[in-house]
Amino acid sequence: MISSHANSQVKQIRKLRERKERQQTGLFYVEGLRIVAEALQLGAPIQELVYSPDLLVSEFGRQLVRQASQQGIALLEVTGDVFQSIAQKDGPQGIGAVIHQQWAPLDQIRPGETDTWVALDAVADPGNLGTILRTNDAVCGAGVILLDQSTDPYDLTAVRASMGALFAQKLARASFEQFEHWVKEQGLPVTGTSDSAQLDYHACVYPGRMVLLMGSERQGLKPHHLKLCDQVVRIPMYGRGDSLNLAVATAVMLYELFNQRREKAPDHEE
Amino acid sequence: MISSHANSQVKQIRKLRERKERQQTGLFYVEGLRIVAEALQLGAPIQELVYSPDLLVSEFGRQLVRQASQQGIALLEVTGDVFQSIAQKDGPQGIGAVIHQQWAPLDQIRPGETDTWVALDAVADPGNLGTILRTNDAVCGAGVILLDQSTDPYDLTAVRASMGALFAQKLARASFEQFEHWVKEQGLPVTGTSDSAQLDYHACVYPGRMVLLMGSERQGLKPHHLKLCDQVVRIPMYGRGDSLNLAVATAVMLYELFNQRREKAPDHEE
Repeated sequence: MISSHANSQVKQIRKLRERKERQQTGLFYVEGLRIVAEALQLGAPIQELVYSPDLLVSEFGRQLVRQASQQGIALLEVTGDVFQSIAQKDGPQGIGAVIHQQWAPLDQIRPGETDTWVALDAVADPGNLGTILRTNDAVCGAGVILLDQSTDPYDLTAVRASMGALFAQKLARASFEQFEHWVKEQGLPVTGTSDSAQLDYHACVYPGRMVLLMGSERQGLKPHHLKLCDQVVRIPMYGRGDSLNLAVATAVMLYELFNQRREKAPDHEE
Repeated sequence: MISSHANSQVKQIRKLRERKERQQTGLFYVEGLRIVAEALQLGAPIQELVYSPDLLVSEFGRQLVRQASQQGIALLEVTGDVFQSIAQKDGPQGIGAVIHQQWAPLDQIRPGETDTWVALDAVADPGNLGTILRTNDAVCGAGVILLDQSTDPYDLTAVRASMGALFAQKLARASFEQFEHWVKEQGLPVTGTSDSAQLDYHACVYPGRMVLLMGSERQGLKPHHLKLCDQVVRIPMYGRGDSLNLAVATAVMLYELFNQRREKAPDHEE
């Protein structure tokens, strides 16, 4: 059992708090019973499971360690004290996992007949990004494409907000130019949203195979984004505010698309 | 100009970080140009405006101070150093306001013909609460009722997430018993949402005058809540997750109600 805070593996995990380190290694760290269980259940590429017998008191938690061990996943046993030094949250449950990031190469994605993708320009808030992944998972969205400078989906706040959807959703990243090239090559219709659009989002008909392009929290869609869109729609707002939260606006759009898909193909319903 | 960190007014403002202090005084503190501008614009009951000439560099900010002064609002001028000691955010913009909380007494609320209220049971996340206020403002919802142990809408995270809607939306709080009594007295239909409901939210017709009752992030609606509901609907989810974020689920419901209202009374559209 590792009891030294200065152990190189422990130091390595602690470093994964930094985005730069996550980018360089292609790894990320999650902690907590629920999320580790989800990672195991969904077959996420876990590099090693970290646990502390001092803190991991539940039978469910111990079972997760046995399950990981049976699957041939490397185990790292540490003292409660060392686990606390790794933990990013107070009152840690004594279990965590170092996991390989999974990025789908955009140029290899061939959207199927009913595949709806979400593309996010420069999303800044990790909570919003995680929530969008969670919503897109709920409506069976194909995946999420992060354009240009986006927050890190492997940031712990994003991972938590995704409630496991991060392990289920396809995730790609691209510059706008790469995205534009891909969209044209695939002949993929793009719908954008903007406060200043004329078309009411609820009065439009959407194709089953498409990309929903959402602008950033601060700026919305920029002129070069709007130019790429086949249609730009507006979510009406009648209050004093001039915008919705990005995760909310994306959800309102995604459920509209979802409801239209359900109406077209009622056998998709339960 | 106040230059002492130990000044009693300064100490009082700093204390407003604590929920207990906010509850006892009925005050809260907000900071930043945008939110102070919104409070002024919407006529929030500002007790005093706090500013630091050292930090308040923009002409817009100085204009806000003049505007407040013209409206007879008390001004508290402090040094940059003292302002930093009050500030809850890094890089403060040098302007803040101490504001009176405004709670609508539930027993005096008489919902009109098209008034849709949102009731939230034990909402735990201030970001979710603020986002729900923002969305409800966008769809012209009547207001939000907080049931039982809820997070504080005057927590800075909630205030920020509301993007000013906190100053525009009516806000009430009640025990479940008080809420039940009010709903029955007013003959107000209640719609709840639950994963295990049979009715699809998109296949239902909603009255214009109603309460949307949403359960907490952790537990959803409890049996005694469900008993009060005239109908309980389900937002379908087909992914691997079993729930949506609370602010997202509320938004999906609110936009469904909003779209139905718009379809019934098309003259309400722009």
